[in-house]
Amino acid sequence: MAGEKTGKIEIKEKPIITFLSDFGTQDGYTGSVKGVIKSIAPNCEILDITHDIKAFDIQSAAWTILNYYSSFPAGTVHLAVVDPGVGSRRHPVIIKAGDYFFAGPDNGIFSLAAAREDHTVYNIHPASVEHFTFHGRDIFAPAAAKLALGIHPSELGEKQENRQHKVLPLFQIKDNYIETKAIAVDHFVNIVTGFHKDDFEALGKKGIKSVNIKNYPILGINKYYAERNPGELLVLWNSMNFLEIALNCGNAADKIGINKEQDKIIIKIE
Amino acid sequence: MAGEKTGKIEIKEKPIITFLSDFGTQDGYTGSVKGVIKSIAPNCEILDITHDIKAFDIQSAAWTILNYYSSFPAGTVHLAVVDPGVGSRRHPVIIKAGDYFFAGPDNGIFSLAAAREDHTVYNIHPASVEHFTFHGRDIFAPAAAKLALGIHPSELGEKQENRQHKVLPLFQIKDNYIETKAIAVDHFVNIVTGFHKDDFEALGKKGIKSVNIKNYPILGINKYYAERNPGELLVLWNSMNFLEIALNCGNAADKIGINKEQDKIIIKIE
Amino acid sequence: MAGEKTGKIEIKEKPIITFLSDFGTQDGYTGSVKGVIKSIAPNCEILDITHDIKAFDIQSAAWTILNYYSSFPAGTVHLAVVDPGVGSRRHPVIIKAGDYFFAGPDNGIFSLAAAREDHTVYNIHPASVEHFTFHGRDIFAPAAAKLALGIHPSELGEKQENRQHKVLPLFQIKDNYIETKAIAVDHFVNIVTGFHKDDFEALGKKGIKSVNIKNYPILGINKYYAERNPGELLVLWNSMNFLEIALNCGNAADKIGINKEQDKIIIKIE
Repeated sequence: MAGEKTGKIEIKEKPIITFLSDFGTQDGYTGSVKGVIKSIAPNCEILDITHDIKAFDIQSAAWTILNYYSSFPAGTVHLAVVDPGVGSRRHPVIIKAGDYFFAGPDNGIFSLAAAREDHTVYNIHPASVEHFTFHGRDIFAPAAAKLALGIHPSELGEKQENRQHKVLPLFQIKDNYIETKAIAVDHFVNIVTGFHKDDFEALGKKGIKSVNIKNYPILGINKYYAERNPGELLVLWNSMNFLEIALNCGNAADKIGINKEQDKIIIKIE
Repeated sequence: MAGEKTGKIEIKEKPIITFLSDFGTQDGYTGSVKGVIKSIAPNCEILDITHDIKAFDIQSAAWTILNYYSSFPAGTVHLAVVDPGVGSRRHPVIIKAGDYFFAGPDNGIFSLAAAREDHTVYNIHPASVEHFTFHGRDIFAPAAAKLALGIHPSELGEKQENRQHKVLPLFQIKDNYIETKAIAVDHFVNIVTGFHKDDFEALGKKGIKSVNIKNYPILGINKYYAERNPGELLVLWNSMNFLEIALNCGNAADKIGINKEQDKIIIKIE
Repeated sequence: MAGEKTGKIEIKEKPIITFLSDFGTQDGYTGSVKGVIKSIAPNCEILDITHDIKAFDIQSAAWTILNYYSSFPAGTVHLAVVDPGVGSRRHPVIIKAGDYFFAGPDNGIFSLAAAREDHTVYNIHPASVEHFTFHGRDIFAPAAAKLALGIHPSELGEKQENRQHKVLPLFQIKDNYIETKAIAVDHFVNIVTGFHKDDFEALGKKGIKSVNIKNYPILGINKYYAERNPGELLVLWNSMNFLEIALNCGNAADKIGINKEQDKIIIKIE
């Protein structure tokens, strides 16, 4: 994905700001963030991604961001706030990664996306912030709005020369297999592994021989859910090109009873 | 409704794409669909309807679409993806129905709406699709975006000369009564029946005498919830002109303990 | 807040309508409201706040509206429909409050916001309404859309000369303390009290000495969650400047086991 869009970022007449959070929508915080954005950048378009990330679940947020960021036009600003450490040591950052801007807390939520792009990190200066408990509204929303106005990140923060985002460890290459874990269980209760098609192709091998999870061996790889019988486990490259364990007409994660944090997934390559 | 808007469709400067799915929002799939749309048709406006349709519940989706499609301006593109059969035999379609376009899987989700309009079905050619597991992003989003750009459906798919959408059976006319079922239980836990005011008026009768569901007879018909005492069952034409069984200040479906698939609803006409 | 924006309202080229309801999104009612708005005011921008207000919970809606209304640009129309009394005696209203318009039922949902602004109440004339069960779509959506078009509220309803919105009682000043209750439990399960920083400052006192709720005394006031140890209760002015009882890395409301309607909160001032 990294090499696909390398032109310089061109701000559109109607810039897009996407918005992801773990705020829920019931108490109006997401509303106030939108209001701040529209007050600063009346011309921008705000597109909700989700506000239903599990509270403080940085890993899920990182995976979700990876799922959508690169489908947007160049110049899109991705605002994301999942922030267990608000008010503590983590920096508020802008990351320019490939053709996109990211604004939010520097706690790993942007790491899966940033790892796939050339990127630069800017520490936002929270200079004129009056309230301290709601960085989403008071720091990140103004930063995103100003990026949408075409203001360069270097005017909003200090460039970090020697700092790169942490790349979450997704898989390990062993002697004759790949060891990974579930990075997410998606809406259809399929299991998304940490092994990406790009990583597979970098190995220069022929194909996936089998995937083993707990006591379930799954042979070969499919293109469609419907290529297997209802109730049968299968493996495919999902729409984001991660290897996914699915169940035709059912819930793979429930059938397997996976423990996302603990259960190893072994991928045999041929 | 069918005859209300029969002019030719005029594409607005800022075309609208509505978006309904059963994806939820947490894993970013809806976000990636929006990104694809904005990349192809930067000028369009995307309006979320819902992403909380129960997974694979085609009937609910059909009813929901019926609830909103015709309130939008002519030329609106209604994108809807609830798709148990992805990758299998159902066609990806565009339906031009009255003044609207529908894009999604041909599995019945558009049938209640299409039944009320003159409509033409086009089978989308999934020619240049690279990934096969996420038709929402890879087939339907581009189709919706291209319709919003003003591209004619015949350029995106093959017109089906002899095919009409299945009209879901909603009610039966018996000797001296109507037999129907609940097609939905709405947000306020009222029971929406399959009997529409247009269907009633086509009978040329005077009024609704009673509605019977399980052991609950309900006499007459009301205009307002508040015309009955709190806790009392009532019947009215709801905002979509379907006959609805409601409870003033309460939950009709819970009180009655309805089984949506099995319980018959008997409507006596006078 | 009341004095911050007192200029005359200027309608933007692309007016904003925010939309809050307790409809949920699954049955398409919110979709039909959006369609009606876009049919009347194609140029406006609709921004969802939430549709997940607990059914008929007027107090929560009032607090949520307070959280976002003033962050939007002058001229924004705030459409909100939480309406247990649809069809009964409450008026459909437009309130011009400060630089904003509010459209919805007159049942208190706008009272917290309106109390902070100079405001005028207009009773909407539901003259040409055909359907009676869905005021959101048939009365409030057209009113909001027409306001967004720049039509003056006096053309849409009758000005109420002698009527002000009820201000919900939020706290009482006692001899040497403030008595209040929880007005909301927010997304992070913190307890929002009815005591606002403006109200505190109006007292001309030095500081908050302690907050007592059930058997939990909390001394002093913090700026950040992270100033206290994980698991410790703290008190701070939240992002809306209401006094909030929080728990660093935890859920204050769950720890305390609060009964929102009954439990008194005692604030000692020094």
